[in-house]
Amino acid sequence: MARIQLYDTTLRDGSQGEGVNFSLQDKLLITRKLDALGFDYIEGGYPLSNPKDFEYFQQAAELSLQHARVCAFGMTRRRGVTAENDVGMRALIDSQAPVVTIVGKSWDLHVEEILRVDEAENLAMIRDSVAFVVSQGREVIYDAEHFFDGYLHNPEFALATIRAAQEAGATMAVLCDTNGGSLPEQIARTVGIACDTLKIPVGIHTHNDGDLATANSLAAVAAGAVQVQGTINGIGERCGNADLVCVAANLSLKQEHEVLDGKGVRHLTELSRYVYELANMNFRNNQPFVGASAFAHKGGMHVHAVNRIAHSYEHIEPQVVGNVRRVLVSELSGRSNIVAKATKFKLEQDADLMAKILERVQDLESEGYQFEAAEASFDLLIKKVAGNYAAMFERMHYRVNVETDQKSQPVTEATVKLRVHGEVRHEVAEGDGPVNALDSALRKALNGAYPGLEEMHLVDYKVRVINSTEGTAARVRVVIESRDKEEIWSTIGVSENVIEASWLALVDSVEYKLLKDAGHFEIEAMSAAD
Amino acid sequence: MARIQLYDTTLRDGSQGEGVNFSLQDKLLITRKLDALGFDYIEGGYPLSNPKDFEYFQQAAELSLQHARVCAFGMTRRRGVTAENDVGMRALIDSQAPVVTIVGKSWDLHVEEILRVDEAENLAMIRDSVAFVVSQGREVIYDAEHFFDGYLHNPEFALATIRAAQEAGATMAVLCDTNGGSLPEQIARTVGIACDTLKIPVGIHTHNDGDLATANSLAAVAAGAVQVQGTINGIGERCGNADLVCVAANLSLKQEHEVLDGKGVRHLTELSRYVYELANMNFRNNQPFVGASAFAHKGGMHVHAVNRIAHSYEHIEPQVVGNVRRVLVSELSGRSNIVAKATKFKLEQDADLMAKILERVQDLESEGYQFEAAEASFDLLIKKVAGNYAAMFERMHYRVNVETDQKSQPVTEATVKLRVHGEVRHEVAEGDGPVNALDSALRKALNGAYPGLEEMHLVDYKVRVINSTEGTAARVRVVIESRDKEEIWSTIGVSENVIEASWLALVDSVEYKLLKDAGHFEIEAMSAAD
Repeated sequence: MARIQLYDTTLRDGSQGEGVNFSLQDKLLITRKLDALGFDYIEGGYPLSNPKDFEYFQQAAELSLQHARVCAFGMTRRRGVTAENDVGMRALIDSQAPVVTIVGKSWDLHVEEILRVDEAENLAMIRDSVAFVVSQGREVIYDAEHFFDGYLHNPEFALATIRAAQEAGATMAVLCDTNGGSLPEQIARTVGIACDTLKIPVGIHTHNDGDLATANSLAAVAAGAVQVQGTINGIGERCGNADLVCVAANLSLKQEHEVLDGKGVRHLTELSRYVYELANMNFRNNQPFVGASAFAHKGGMHVHAVNRIAHSYEHIEPQVVGNVRRVLVSELSGRSNIVAKATKFKLEQDADLMAKILERVQDLESEGYQFEAAEASFDLLIKKVAGNYAAMFERMHYRVNVETDQKSQPVTEATVKLRVHGEVRHEVAEGDGPVNALDSALRKALNGAYPGLEEMHLVDYKVRVINSTEGTAARVRVVIESRDKEEIWSTIGVSENVIEASWLALVDSVEYKLLKDAGHFEIEAMSAAD
Repeated sequence: MARIQLYDTTLRDGSQGEGVNFSLQDKLLITRKLDALGFDYIEGGYPLSNPKDFEYFQQAAELSLQHARVCAFGMTRRRGVTAENDVGMRALIDSQAPVVTIVGKSWDLHVEEILRVDEAENLAMIRDSVAFVVSQGREVIYDAEHFFDGYLHNPEFALATIRAAQEAGATMAVLCDTNGGSLPEQIARTVGIACDTLKIPVGIHTHNDGDLATANSLAAVAAGAVQVQGTINGIGERCGNADLVCVAANLSLKQEHEVLDGKGVRHLTELSRYVYELANMNFRNNQPFVGASAFAHKGGMHVHAVNRIAHSYEHIEPQVVGNVRRVLVSELSGRSNIVAKATKFKLEQDADLMAKILERVQDLESEGYQFEAAEASFDLLIKKVAGNYAAMFERMHYRVNVETDQKSQPVTEATVKLRVHGEVRHEVAEGDGPVNALDSALRKALNGAYPGLEEMHLVDYKVRVINSTEGTAARVRVVIESRDKEEIWSTIGVSENVIEASWLALVDSVEYKLLKDAGHFEIEAMSAAD
């Protein structure tokens, strides 16, 4: 099948998404990553809109990209101004981007009611803008906003707009389903007509308002489109853009189109998580192809079958998109995970030790522990079972008291009593809530003994009730995420008592930090000990 | 266009999703909600798999559903056993569910390699199982697992399996894209062939592994399927099932099919959030149609245009699915919900009161409250704002103390001081954890004054950290579910302190019960008061 160009607009349309905000540095890192995987075009921003986007283009020019062409995005000139004198046009040229993507109106409603110009002026705006940018030696991609809605209302006018862009020198006309509500049949039909009308190639730009952005992109390609515009993880305004991760995987693995470079698809999982991290967004576990649950098997029948024949319950092999299979049932999941993790400490050869660790993990899992997201607690557990654990302090007593007269905020006080280097320390602290107060009292009690603690902070605190059938007597699982200058780590505590569960996770977190600072998690220390 | 049946399997296939776990009460609440919106079938569980699912069917039979038929799910009989003597078949019959959904193999690979029987025995397993359940007076829906993969590998055999189900008396054959990797064209073609082959109607069951579950469901309907199986919010194993919220909205609003009852689509947003809350999952903001961002406009050009003409950047009106437009960052949510809920108390004519309630809700939402799944707290709020609330007791003081010497389980003690009917009561109790201890002390303090409390129990307790960027000082949202003989209700508390948040939810729960017993939530009492 043909090569399909992928045009990424994570940095422009993606950043319109609620809560999405990239720094200049983030944008440059993402640009380099997209280039390394073989993306064809990277839309970096809207130079008129803010100085950060303008600066981006200056720095992107220095990146020596191997494959991708960087695009600046902007609208057609305003009415009643020449393209040369339009401030938006000038910003596009000044950006020095080798490609300029110009968006114009295709829907007569927008022309008449939003722009408030007549149809002839709209066509002139498209023609002038494209021709001016071409005259400055740039490649011009023309984005036809609302093309599908426009075509439904006034097909002649909609087609006239993309013909105008072609005549003025655009290299491609990209049909946009801006409101994201079109159905695949409508997309396919309209793309087919546009392909018949134009000599230049046609692209597709969809949004996910009907949960059909991927399907609409594929339908457009089947009807003749040769470029798909979208964003990584589908981030973007409202319900987002087409997720290029899913589009690329489908085109490559289901339809044998050529996309990215030879190995790009194998890095889709890594790319997806990289962008989530830089955007400071949580991963979407059930994201197709690349989500942490995408190849996770929970149902007993499925687990049994997958163990026998992987493709019995998997549509593709997870590794072809860089993902991994996970089996979620604890008794089955534990062993391979444990071996994988013990490998880190070169302990995997010790079969007796592996059996002991597995037994301990299974006991704890039956109490509600889960070590998938609490690797620091797991590392401590390995040390404890291997017999090379020495406590950095001895816990003697804690108490938490929450009290209120109902007229003001409750007062929370915690006391912690420890033995540190043979000396008993007994301290008290207040906090916003019980965990905060315990954390403060614990640090106060360790104060001086371990100065490294000052650079440690709690980052996140998660609580889940595990077996929720017994009301407030149910077990509670607490996961705490902490960090210092170098690392982020997670620890877990489980108890019927939310305070005790929090305390267990907190103590693990502090112990992990202290042992780490003392070099106890270096490989030699672990393997030499028994 | 034709009526399309919606078959919900949130409670069975949905609960295979990672981290999804419904209590029996949750399952019954969701069943009632789905029925109220006009769903046709509700697959409640797998009676063989666990006692909770078995118990569900006993209790669901008492719900007096208006519209939906409840289905029990199970596999065909095992090899070499008669259907009558098969333990799975017996569990299906014993469940007393009026509809039984039997899943069988369509893919020769699975028959030979997983089941390890020959093709003839597989056909006999399907025929015997369907015929036996039909002979017991139940409606049988036949789910053809892996039908699309099976048809690709061995079309004659795949078609023979659904013919066997038809001959044995199944009322419908549902073609399952079990691995979720099929493309819309393949789905459409195969559904068309199945429709031509069978006399009974055909349904579709898709998974989202290729990000195409909605598109595949729509393609199947266009090719002749009359039933769509899926889950609310698309929860389910791996990447989940078809999201019936999106499917229903597309079928109804884009294709003018008849789905649900006349007003069901208007409640899709409410339904989506209700299920997220009960599953203790976060809402997906960019979820099509019902997400909080689905009609949120961030781009300046879009905001400007939407203010002039809403449909310039919206594919549908948000209110037709019960959602709301959001412009900029303001919290405009709630108004329609509030009016809908105030209608219950015949207060919706009082515009001043509605404005006051809206303002109060918006203040609380900005603190992290969410009332979708905490209706009892919302009803209390209406009473308070309407000025017809009289406290059943006055809160004076509470204290919770958790203490341990680190050698045994922590001891948790709570004291509660109240004024009840003019008398100060001060009581102390122990508990498994702080909430349990507070609950016991509160009941002890109210003991005698309100005997109705004895029939009230806490059913569930859910905790979520809301803004998790500040570590343990983040806010915590607690939702408590309680019940008495007649009703289940939910209440909410939010605070930086998990104890205080729990206390607020607990007090609301007890107050709701006491006011309800005193007749304060009868419509006359509410509307007569101001």
